[in-house]
Amino acid sequence: MATEIETIAQGTVTTPRGFQAGAARVDVRPDTQRLDLAILYSEAPCQAAAVYTRNRVRAAPLLLTEKHLADGRAQAVVANSGCANAATGERGLQDALEMARLTGVRLGIAGEEVGVASTGVIGTFLPMDRIGRGIERVHLSPEGGMDFARAIMTTDTRPKHLAIRFGPYTLGGVAKGAGMIHPNMATMLCFITTDAPVSSAYLNTALKEAVDSSFNMIDVDSDTSTNDMVLVLANGLADGEPIEAETPMAAAFAEALAAVCAHLAKAIVTDAEGSTKFLEARVIGASSLGDARKAAREVVRSLAVKTAVYGQDANWGRILAAVGNSGCEMDEAKTALYLAIPEGGELCLFRSGSPLPYDEAQAKACLAPREVAILVDLGLGEYAATAWGSDITENYVRLNSQYTT
Amino acid sequence: MATEIETIAQGTVTTPRGFQAGAARVDVRPDTQRLDLAILYSEAPCQAAAVYTRNRVRAAPLLLTEKHLADGRAQAVVANSGCANAATGERGLQDALEMARLTGVRLGIAGEEVGVASTGVIGTFLPMDRIGRGIERVHLSPEGGMDFARAIMTTDTRPKHLAIRFGPYTLGGVAKGAGMIHPNMATMLCFITTDAPVSSAYLNTALKEAVDSSFNMIDVDSDTSTNDMVLVLANGLADGEPIEAETPMAAAFAEALAAVCAHLAKAIVTDAEGSTKFLEARVIGASSLGDARKAAREVVRSLAVKTAVYGQDANWGRILAAVGNSGCEMDEAKTALYLAIPEGGELCLFRSGSPLPYDEAQAKACLAPREVAILVDLGLGEYAATAWGSDITENYVRLNSQYTT
Repeated sequence: MATEIETIAQGTVTTPRGFQAGAARVDVRPDTQRLDLAILYSEAPCQAAAVYTRNRVRAAPLLLTEKHLADGRAQAVVANSGCANAATGERGLQDALEMARLTGVRLGIAGEEVGVASTGVIGTFLPMDRIGRGIERVHLSPEGGMDFARAIMTTDTRPKHLAIRFGPYTLGGVAKGAGMIHPNMATMLCFITTDAPVSSAYLNTALKEAVDSSFNMIDVDSDTSTNDMVLVLANGLADGEPIEAETPMAAAFAEALAAVCAHLAKAIVTDAEGSTKFLEARVIGASSLGDARKAAREVVRSLAVKTAVYGQDANWGRILAAVGNSGCEMDEAKTALYLAIPEGGELCLFRSGSPLPYDEAQAKACLAPREVAILVDLGLGEYAATAWGSDITENYVRLNSQYTT
Repeated sequence: MATEIETIAQGTVTTPRGFQAGAARVDVRPDTQRLDLAILYSEAPCQAAAVYTRNRVRAAPLLLTEKHLADGRAQAVVANSGCANAATGERGLQDALEMARLTGVRLGIAGEEVGVASTGVIGTFLPMDRIGRGIERVHLSPEGGMDFARAIMTTDTRPKHLAIRFGPYTLGGVAKGAGMIHPNMATMLCFITTDAPVSSAYLNTALKEAVDSSFNMIDVDSDTSTNDMVLVLANGLADGEPIEAETPMAAAFAEALAAVCAHLAKAIVTDAEGSTKFLEARVIGASSLGDARKAAREVVRSLAVKTAVYGQDANWGRILAAVGNSGCEMDEAKTALYLAIPEGGELCLFRSGSPLPYDEAQAKACLAPREVAILVDLGLGEYAATAWGSDITENYVRLNSQYTT
């Protein structure tokens, strides 16, 4: 029998059993006047896993979190917005360590059980006095998940959160990110909690897979921050058999995790500042999963595609050129391009190496809605992937160039 | 004794001995009303070499030219703007072949001696009747190089050309390209001529090197067209000893070729539509040439850097993050970042893993001129590279989204 899965739209990181959270305003940046420090805490020790930015410049909190999660365990996370604590050298590492230590003291656990995340301006130091007082002041409660989601926001216009119930278990997540649209505030952060008794090894495997098909398939502006992090905590408080790669609940857990990651990844794209469109690119018929992903990602990355979608211009040559640029195996003569028709079905623009005559008004109508979908059939194999991206607008440039540190 | 080198600012592809060119208006696109068909011809057969786009979608003229140049020889080029003849299947290939054949008939040479280049909208067919009549009508002369440069322009605002005299020889070039700022008109084309007696093998080697340090080091909007091509013809009419890899004139030839390529590459960046800045990124201290190039390219590619430069915002964290994103070997603690000061010297913003206090007004002053230079010292090795890019402005987005086919 398939496991029952239920989506909880108002769910968050404190929806699973035994998780508490809270936030405070400590004015990391004096000008923001909003919640900017948050703690997430599990009443019981957790199996923990995380994936980090691929940028070679790695922020201090990320380096520390990686160290603290090396044993596959953690019990809390402390996060701040307004300052990335990146490119801050030895002093930055000491500051991240102090954040973990103070949070440990506050919660009565070892500092090594605490993950640390920061997001905001690169190259500035944390106001450790205010951070320290804030950590003491945060009120933790099982209702605090939404405050946590708000406190990690930077240029986000809304908190991003979701929970999913699968069988006897619950999994919840929050994320922040709205693109590198404000200098150095690009960071994508995501925290996921579950009360399912997942083994450390399987938690790592499932997280990597879920991230590969969600956060690694979105593009706002092709820049990877120094602070990106997706962290999951599994406290097992819902009891039951341990979930391992081959156990009965493994598939349901992986599905719930992937669904929450996909929802949050798409929420980031939807919230991309300056954007007017949500673009989905689905590539089918690829020779490998890697090729399908490469091609889909390049379609939503291409500035030429982004601006054509913004302008509602059915310039399918740009889509074909983006696929050609992706490095995926392709044969122009076997490739077909389609736009999703809002009322259903697809409009074919290119097939068998040649352009197809099409009704320009109908093509424009495909690009008119806020959600635009492109389908590319490479005609070579059985692999498929989907990527999501925002468009690029004058407003993106304005927001991104007029910001001053 | 070093070879004397002289730059001829008004030089073009017909400056070297024995080259003729000309252009005609054939209204490939009925709306353009400008020269859009051009022929370049050498009075003697030439050694020929070319490099082509890395996009997997390769336009018909490019496929044909590659075939015609397979023997390392050619004598003429026919080029059109307004239609890329890309994504046009078998009919596109036939059209390119017909362009070569008609040009051969016109010039009294075999069609196989003709290279073909097209630039313009993807996915439309060439108006072969008008192209054919145009080929007959083009007037060829040793003064026609500038008309050739004009006829290959699309969104370019000015022709791009240069010649260099080195010892007894002359080398001239023209290029077009202004970024993918108008849909599908992104193509970068460059044609180079010389009267030096260069061997086919050395022509290939020298061209690849020159392109790697020039056209492969520029970025307008990170999109690679389906039609990009750099083609060089050496007719040897200036006589002298054959130039091979180890002969006395080899270095001077390579230097002249690289100088013309660099000049034309920078002219493309300067002409990037919607741009307000010319950004130079120099990376030194890299572990390898590949790393230096990767890092320099990523700095001028990053949207975050482009928009910061446009906004004259000294957000050096974006530069550091771009280097980190490039995949080059780096150690944050050994990396230093500088901005060139207009009056001379550099302003250091980051060194030994930590931000340096700096005068914000002075940093802004570094970003105020049209030409902005960034220096990155990776502190690891002896390799260096330079890349050039434009900024991204609201105007870029406007131009790029409001175009309709």
